[in-house]
Amino acid sequence: MSNNKEKQALLDASALLARRKFLRAAGTVAVATVAVPALAESLADVPARRVGDSISGLSQRSKYVHLERITEATPGKLRVDPALAINSKTPLDKLVGAITPSDMHYERSHSGSPDLDPAQHRLLIHGMAKKELVFTMEELRAMPSVSRIHFMECSGNGWENWKKADPGMTVQDTHGLVSMHEWTGVHLSYLMEQVNADPASTWMLAEGGDAAGVARSIPLTDEIIEEALVVYAQNGEPLRPAHGFPIRLLIPGMEGNLSIKWLRRLKFGDRPFMTRWETARYTQLLPNGKARQFQLYQEVNSVITSPSGTMRIGAGYNRITGLAWSGRGKIAKVEISTDGGASWREARLNAPILHKAQVRFDADWHWDGRPTRILSRSTDDKGHVQPDRQSLLAVMGENALFHYNAQQTWAIDAEGRVTNALS
Amino acid sequence: MSNNKEKQALLDASALLARRKFLRAAGTVAVATVAVPALAESLADVPARRVGDSISGLSQRSKYVHLERITEATPGKLRVDPALAINSKTPLDKLVGAITPSDMHYERSHSGSPDLDPAQHRLLIHGMAKKELVFTMEELRAMPSVSRIHFMECSGNGWENWKKADPGMTVQDTHGLVSMHEWTGVHLSYLMEQVNADPASTWMLAEGGDAAGVARSIPLTDEIIEEALVVYAQNGEPLRPAHGFPIRLLIPGMEGNLSIKWLRRLKFGDRPFMTRWETARYTQLLPNGKARQFQLYQEVNSVITSPSGTMRIGAGYNRITGLAWSGRGKIAKVEISTDGGASWREARLNAPILHKAQVRFDADWHWDGRPTRILSRSTDDKGHVQPDRQSLLAVMGENALFHYNAQQTWAIDAEGRVTNALS
Repeated sequence: MSNNKEKQALLDASALLARRKFLRAAGTVAVATVAVPALAESLADVPARRVGDSISGLSQRSKYVHLERITEATPGKLRVDPALAINSKTPLDKLVGAITPSDMHYERSHSGSPDLDPAQHRLLIHGMAKKELVFTMEELRAMPSVSRIHFMECSGNGWENWKKADPGMTVQDTHGLVSMHEWTGVHLSYLMEQVNADPASTWMLAEGGDAAGVARSIPLTDEIIEEALVVYAQNGEPLRPAHGFPIRLLIPGMEGNLSIKWLRRLKFGDRPFMTRWETARYTQLLPNGKARQFQLYQEVNSVITSPSGTMRIGAGYNRITGLAWSGRGKIAKVEISTDGGASWREARLNAPILHKAQVRFDADWHWDGRPTRILSRSTDDKGHVQPDRQSLLAVMGENALFHYNAQQTWAIDAEGRVTNALS
Repeated sequence: MSNNKEKQALLDASALLARRKFLRAAGTVAVATVAVPALAESLADVPARRVGDSISGLSQRSKYVHLERITEATPGKLRVDPALAINSKTPLDKLVGAITPSDMHYERSHSGSPDLDPAQHRLLIHGMAKKELVFTMEELRAMPSVSRIHFMECSGNGWENWKKADPGMTVQDTHGLVSMHEWTGVHLSYLMEQVNADPASTWMLAEGGDAAGVARSIPLTDEIIEEALVVYAQNGEPLRPAHGFPIRLLIPGMEGNLSIKWLRRLKFGDRPFMTRWETARYTQLLPNGKARQFQLYQEVNSVITSPSGTMRIGAGYNRITGLAWSGRGKIAKVEISTDGGASWREARLNAPILHKAQVRFDADWHWDGRPTRILSRSTDDKGHVQPDRQSLLAVMGENALFHYNAQQTWAIDAEGRVTNALS
């Protein structure tokens, strides 16, 4: 239905309108140079009005909308038993903006998701501290609290691409273990005051109330003491069981497994507690066969969410969009390449750009119909640049499983088919 | 279980910890002066670990969490038939932070909530423009887009308190017609370019696809052209039917009914279109019996959400928290009074403070156990100050129904019972 003459006419229209005052404001979206996907049709194509359903206590999704996380079993195990599922990935290919809906945040659990009774749950705080205190959930909720918008990411996000690129993978498969909420809770520092934590304590054990008893040692750096929260809410509502109800720890910018769900205990000490979660798991196997412990930061990262794996595009105008984030601070810049990394240009960043938060980026692109590869590269405000895959492998080798933050490449063939690829 | 000696010991602990470097960071939450609700119990009180449910495609709410909007019928009509419900209010007393969960955004509809087929839905743009275009939803989603965090508020929010204060009302009853999401969509200015809107057009008709055919005339001010969006997503996911799926208009800072849901038509003209929605409805009856048309801004406002109506508090430490917003810009300051307006002090504002966005405020308070009244007063960055009730009535009279933004007073009796009150 669209044709080049129509599009040219619309581009001419833009030039005419440029004289108007309101177009100066509109200039911020940089529209005059992009082709126009609009189609003229007849008025008869606008459907008639519809009688609606009754107003209810909850807004349900449309029956035309199908959103679901992918649940996955342990790598190497057959996906035969739902009880084997260990994670559930956010559908980044179907979401827009930067906030993740409350039921779409990724999930990674080691023994399923308990629904704890908040009237019975307690938080014990002890160890190197003058007081040993046990808090009820009611007490925690009565304390001074703050709300912070932060991404959370599993350290295993992206591991699928360490060794090979499955061409059937979507961006939900490759990168769906990152999400973002507004979290609300109490400063860790406030709780440390309540128990009078020993100034000589340099590590903290955080332990969950799930059957697996996931527990991690967390170094008490100034950054963590300043930013860590014990949270009870996600996007304004109580945490959901999959995300730690009634309380979880939140360590912004660091691997998700530190943000212990179903939090039941904090213990202060002067050395790491060496739980099995930081020996048997969550260590990084290096090329020399040794394992690195406590690689905690989620480094600067980004991914193009559209076009992305299994999508199909047409020649002409295509909007490229994606997400960028860094556990070290704010995103300063995102560049995209549409020629396999030979040349780069800056993408637009959506405001507000927040500390340790996902930012949505986009850029206009005219695809000439020839096979190519597209990728993104982010830079944070501390100067960290997202590495290309070869540079990351040169340092980390192929034994590694965690903290894969290499630039993600999507290949596009002559038919417009988009597939996961390595660069 | 709590006692004064225990609390004093904890306050002493704060003083000791003040020497530590990390306490300088913690100082931002101003905790050293508040009483401590923590209680020491035995270790046996920490419940055992629980085996969890399987990981699933959607994170459901806890069975222990009960969140629902209140549905209400037209004022004066009996609430006998669910089909009479015209709105559904956000439970501000049960939510925290500033973002509203996607299924908890308030709803106000005139003929229920149609679930439109996005494959069939179209947006017609015509009138004083060189082109008459009809867009599919797929075309709109392919355009350059932005995401913005804005509050939305029904012009009828707070009308319950124009004439009397029902002491049985919660803050969900009195103020539940305001919510906030991250919205994603296309700039109105971009669409105006596509049709080459006539520079002489000063008004725009926006019409919905619901059976009521809600339609409003919108003045094409520079501010509206710069900020208005045609949105297709809320908090990252497709709009839900109750909120306009597949598309709605978003006019930030102005009365919610301008943000036409199920948007099917935009028409440009050089005068208001005088629909029945701006004659029979959504006009403001003044003291002299005349009606004011096009009172569009949602003025500077705030409300204490805790403690609030029907809650009960105890003597000693209480955290006061609430929400503030202004359709004119950013919130600059929120003050609270705990003596019925005789004296005021500034509340803390949670970051980030965004343009035309709700901001969460809080303050520490020691209640001495004597009956009193608490209220909040917000100021925006344009210098607008939220009026007290008497000042608002002096200007608007008691005929008015819309745009009630007077300071909200909660009375507290000697038993700690909190009730809705007028000041």
